[in-house]
Amino acid sequence: MDAWKGFKGNQWKEEVNVRDFIQANYTEYTGDDSFLEPIAPSTDKLWTKLQELFDVQHEKNGVYDMDTNIPATITSHEPGYLIKEEETIVGLQTDVPLKQAFMPFGGINMANNALTSNGYEIDPEMSHIFTDYRKTHNQGVFDAYTPEMRSARKNKIITGLPDAYGRGRIIGDYRRLALYGVDFLMAQKAKDHANTGNKVMTDDVVRLREEISEQYRALGQIKEMAASYGFDVSKPATDSKEAIQWLYFGYLAAIKSQNGAAMSIGRISAFLDIYIQRDLEAGVITEFEAQEMIDHLIMKLRMVKFARTPEYNQLFSGYPIWATLSIAGMGLDGRSLVTKNDFRILHTLTNMGPSPEPNLTVLYSSSEPEGFRTYAAKIAKESSSIQFENDDLLRANWGSDDCAIACCVSATVMGKDMQFFGARANLAKAVLYAINGGVDEMTKAQVAPKFRPMTGDKLDYNEFIERYKDIMDWLAELYVNTLNVIHYMHDKYAYEAPQLAFMDSDLKRTFATGIAGISHAADSLMAIKHGNVEVIRDENGLAIDYKPTQEFPTYGNDQEEADEIANWILDYFMTQIKRQHTYRNSTPTTSLLTITSNVVYGKATGNTPDGRRAGKPLAPGANPSYQDGKFLGEKHGLLASLNSTARLQYTNALDGISNTQTINPNGLGKDDDTRINNLRNVMDGYFDKGGYHLNVNVFTNELLLDAQANPEKYPNLTIRVSGYAVKFRDLTPEQQADVISRTSHDHM
Amino acid sequence: MDAWKGFKGNQWKEEVNVRDFIQANYTEYTGDDSFLEPIAPSTDKLWTKLQELFDVQHEKNGVYDMDTNIPATITSHEPGYLIKEEETIVGLQTDVPLKQAFMPFGGINMANNALTSNGYEIDPEMSHIFTDYRKTHNQGVFDAYTPEMRSARKNKIITGLPDAYGRGRIIGDYRRLALYGVDFLMAQKAKDHANTGNKVMTDDVVRLREEISEQYRALGQIKEMAASYGFDVSKPATDSKEAIQWLYFGYLAAIKSQNGAAMSIGRISAFLDIYIQRDLEAGVITEFEAQEMIDHLIMKLRMVKFARTPEYNQLFSGYPIWATLSIAGMGLDGRSLVTKNDFRILHTLTNMGPSPEPNLTVLYSSSEPEGFRTYAAKIAKESSSIQFENDDLLRANWGSDDCAIACCVSATVMGKDMQFFGARANLAKAVLYAINGGVDEMTKAQVAPKFRPMTGDKLDYNEFIERYKDIMDWLAELYVNTLNVIHYMHDKYAYEAPQLAFMDSDLKRTFATGIAGISHAADSLMAIKHGNVEVIRDENGLAIDYKPTQEFPTYGNDQEEADEIANWILDYFMTQIKRQHTYRNSTPTTSLLTITSNVVYGKATGNTPDGRRAGKPLAPGANPSYQDGKFLGEKHGLLASLNSTARLQYTNALDGISNTQTINPNGLGKDDDTRINNLRNVMDGYFDKGGYHLNVNVFTNELLLDAQANPEKYPNLTIRVSGYAVKFRDLTPEQQADVISRTSHDHM
Repeated sequence: MDAWKGFKGNQWKEEVNVRDFIQANYTEYTGDDSFLEPIAPSTDKLWTKLQELFDVQHEKNGVYDMDTNIPATITSHEPGYLIKEEETIVGLQTDVPLKQAFMPFGGINMANNALTSNGYEIDPEMSHIFTDYRKTHNQGVFDAYTPEMRSARKNKIITGLPDAYGRGRIIGDYRRLALYGVDFLMAQKAKDHANTGNKVMTDDVVRLREEISEQYRALGQIKEMAASYGFDVSKPATDSKEAIQWLYFGYLAAIKSQNGAAMSIGRISAFLDIYIQRDLEAGVITEFEAQEMIDHLIMKLRMVKFARTPEYNQLFSGYPIWATLSIAGMGLDGRSLVTKNDFRILHTLTNMGPSPEPNLTVLYSSSEPEGFRTYAAKIAKESSSIQFENDDLLRANWGSDDCAIACCVSATVMGKDMQFFGARANLAKAVLYAINGGVDEMTKAQVAPKFRPMTGDKLDYNEFIERYKDIMDWLAELYVNTLNVIHYMHDKYAYEAPQLAFMDSDLKRTFATGIAGISHAADSLMAIKHGNVEVIRDENGLAIDYKPTQEFPTYGNDQEEADEIANWILDYFMTQIKRQHTYRNSTPTTSLLTITSNVVYGKATGNTPDGRRAGKPLAPGANPSYQDGKFLGEKHGLLASLNSTARLQYTNALDGISNTQTINPNGLGKDDDTRINNLRNVMDGYFDKGGYHLNVNVFTNELLLDAQANPEKYPNLTIRVSGYAVKFRDLTPEQQADVISRTSHDHM
Repeated sequence: MDAWKGFKGNQWKEEVNVRDFIQANYTEYTGDDSFLEPIAPSTDKLWTKLQELFDVQHEKNGVYDMDTNIPATITSHEPGYLIKEEETIVGLQTDVPLKQAFMPFGGINMANNALTSNGYEIDPEMSHIFTDYRKTHNQGVFDAYTPEMRSARKNKIITGLPDAYGRGRIIGDYRRLALYGVDFLMAQKAKDHANTGNKVMTDDVVRLREEISEQYRALGQIKEMAASYGFDVSKPATDSKEAIQWLYFGYLAAIKSQNGAAMSIGRISAFLDIYIQRDLEAGVITEFEAQEMIDHLIMKLRMVKFARTPEYNQLFSGYPIWATLSIAGMGLDGRSLVTKNDFRILHTLTNMGPSPEPNLTVLYSSSEPEGFRTYAAKIAKESSSIQFENDDLLRANWGSDDCAIACCVSATVMGKDMQFFGARANLAKAVLYAINGGVDEMTKAQVAPKFRPMTGDKLDYNEFIERYKDIMDWLAELYVNTLNVIHYMHDKYAYEAPQLAFMDSDLKRTFATGIAGISHAADSLMAIKHGNVEVIRDENGLAIDYKPTQEFPTYGNDQEEADEIANWILDYFMTQIKRQHTYRNSTPTTSLLTITSNVVYGKATGNTPDGRRAGKPLAPGANPSYQDGKFLGEKHGLLASLNSTARLQYTNALDGISNTQTINPNGLGKDDDTRINNLRNVMDGYFDKGGYHLNVNVFTNELLLDAQANPEKYPNLTIRVSGYAVKFRDLTPEQQADVISRTSHDHM
């Protein structure tokens, strides 16, 4: 086949196997960034135009325009362009740049709420159709919920459940479209359909057979959608421009029809480099043109928008959509997967400036070429827009060198795994439930079973631990079963056919749970054990405040006992999670990740025994507590903090452990070169010790305070928050304050 | 409560228990028909008007008018009337009498086809909604079918599957609405919702919890719909008129929103008699008024219409909807459940003349009062419009004296059971597959696995039986799994909430299969064993015809060996059916019933070894073969035929055994009294011997020939066909010929 001319290897030609194609064909790059080209005139024009639209969008509270009467499907919209003649890569979610599509399948009430809260009105006919004829995910979930589930949700011991938004975090392997074309993929799906189940039609078999039919249909629609832009994607891409375009069309089908919480694009770097390298070697394109195409692709990813509700924006601030793009990483054979394309992709942050999207993710290993690690550290320092995940842990635990990150820290093997996303349980609040016999400290409602409360003026550690285990037992069971309802209904009413179409039919499914407040839980246990905590009660005897009166070890200061109690909590809770029945017999995992919802969760969590004040944000993800009261905060510097986080067992939190750090540039060294080298060395050490993830911010608190006071001066100031990057001006005032209150390390 | 004033008993007041209410309050009637009142002026006016509409409908090929743009729901239509001021019982499916609603949920293609084949055009917006936003049952099924299922369906070894129409046969216990009112029922459903599942959310639990929510919602909509007619059904009915009206509103909700193949109303006679008796005793109404209300209710049931496709009409001719209404029966305590109301209901056939609908069904026992049995025999003889089922078998096998018949012969306990309806497998064609190694004798396609064919000029019985078992093994597995797909999708895309709302939340579910061609299969086995059958082959060696050269016993002539081989086939096939996994762990049953599809099935079945000619209709249900070639036909008279049918094991065919007989009046006796008494005695004997069902026709073949030649003379001529009654003029020419060709017994 002409499209495959010059490509090596055989296995990938016989079966869908992109990893085999990459391994057989990629060119490792061990040099530095000196080959990179500046921004092209077309990119400049497009980006200038887009920034004008972004300004309009910002003035209109994040909404440029919204559809009110076209339910979004792969083929619902006419082609749209930013500046047609300048675009080397085309395709928009709707017919107008930044216009948000109407996506009712997840929930008509949410779709309606997203419109009305932004001053739009839903077409009454749409409301009628999606109320009377087409049931939506959200209603299905609430039809099946138990009162206990509603109560746990309302009282925020379980929070952020994807019952009112799309679960997301599913990455189609869109590279397949470029490498094989639609027709090959449809033939494969037809074959899978034929070989799914053998005679006996259990519900599982019937469900999967129907799903494969839906995937097959979606592939046909993608062909139609691409044709409307003038491209025939039925056959493989023949050059680098087509490869980028085809791949993007696959992703575009997903974001046109699914409003998932995280719509990640996956690991596409080395794959595309193979096409670019072939074209460069053939003299068909120049490096300048290669960078132009990559810039245009990345610009498209910066434009993705979804209509969302105020509640959603409160949880996940700054309109993230997690177009997470994973680069670099090591191969199982010991070669690194670093190519020139990893440089090109990071270089977009220079050519077009920093940006929250796509959520650029470096799969990091100290075995990668120094040239790349240095360049990645440089871009992280300059942009505060990228994150790092430990590629050594990924390969060891997921058995593949073709992992990608979905959303923030969730690993997935491209085309092989999908995730049932499940938000999180608040284990800091669970500490308070254990003390108060299942009564919520904020609402005074009996939420958990009527366990025996702790009485008296002091807290006994052994008495507490027994109660905490009871609460975690109850919480794990309720949490998993709540998610069982959600995923049953999501598959029934909002199945992600365009994404699953680019994955194997017989998938590995993980069942992702999550933990919020791990540091406060750990610190509270340490306070109860060592801090001689005095209890303050309200008129009904409910414990409402705590005064630790002695020093106690805290998580985040490289104090082993505190770090290990965090591990114990994680291990105990995960063990309970694993005991439960999970939807479709999926494999349970958990994460230590809150994204920006730490603010909302904290608001709903009372005073904790470690001295943290009621209503204050929880530390995000696996981050140590901030300074709050005299006992809390990272007091021993950056390295101690990183050592503590690295001590958390990734094997117990395979959905990821999120760690966000802000470093004062002066803490890293006196000049830029020193700072870059130190940052790289810090990361080498952290990841070699088993740290899983790092969000790197390099700036001073003064900068943030200035940006808070003078937002107009910093339209593009981008920072890393828990799991993604965000424009500082798009954060709520509360979240800006939270970010500023975080520790900014001024020494190692 | 005032509504329950004078009613006895307690249990039914505490829980939903209509049977207990009936047992505590009904008045057995042991007299004759002398109390009955003639037609009321209002009934006459309404019936005259309706007949005018029927004539228009008949001229327009069965379609008075059709909706093209209102998807039918419980509340989709404004109130409709025939002659508002004359109606004591109100409520129509749409806003205009006989206008057929648009019902796309079962399948948009079918709904479209029903419209276009009748000269209507679907609203393009509807087509768009139900293609792009709301998937329908039919598409779900075909998304999951295997090629083998499609082939078995196309080649008609499995036929009439409810994948292109609603499965039907679900009877809501609409009496509950009259006795309890909506509010009580909603409270019960809320309680059931709370008590369904305990913490662990398996798919089964989630599904049922959602279904109960849907039922709850449907009950609310019924309240709304009734209010549009000016009635508040939130509370129990207070008198007989309200009781009839409430009960009918419950049924109306079902037929407004569900186009099931059989929309039966159940066993309502003794229940309503209790209300009528209370009003009569209180002097609130007269017998004349009681009859008027019953006539009006029955008239409403005569008006039910559904938009259906030509394919459907071919299978089930004459527009049946099976508003099956069951009367009489015995109680478990030895009292009969016969009330005056059973007389009133049969009397509607006199007051308004014969009619196919409702499908009047007498639950018969020789223990019932002679007055009633005589009257039932009289009406059967005069109208040829009613059927009889063996109530002694029902009580013994279903453990209840509150059974009703759904559709034709399917028993169900009111409010406790639902059925997954499953059409039928053609076991006559299976005989030919056994001989030809799974190759279809009509299409020449390899449909079953490539079993060894039978070669040679003669058929060896032992060789044949081994092959026949292999084919039945294969067929039972494929058949049940095809139904597993259908019922999964039916629940997913066309769930019958308004019917299930009137049933217990925790139901017993039966999984109904069916057998077509039992008599031809049995006779063919006897021919192969005793008839020295010569085989005639085509140029490829495929057996295409058979010549039995010796006499052999045949089913239907009281020859034990032939009857017992029919039982063996039934037992063997049912044993295979029972081995399979069934959807929702439902209990497998089977029926010997073809309805009028025997004609279509026969058309697709080649020559059989018993001498039956290719393409000729199969004998319907469990009926013996008609005369066809010199060896076939009922040669020993009515009683011998009934003895053979009575020999079939009901315990192996709990979904029913259908038997349709036509008796020449002269064969029953010289005058009407003798004929009535003889018919009653015949039925006493037949049912005492274990016969399950009897369709009674009393007329001469000359009458049918005259009606065939001069249809205008017989606008209301009604006859019983397999499982239901039909207006003779509404049958297709082929089906008229089939009916005429059947045995009309001129002697006992």
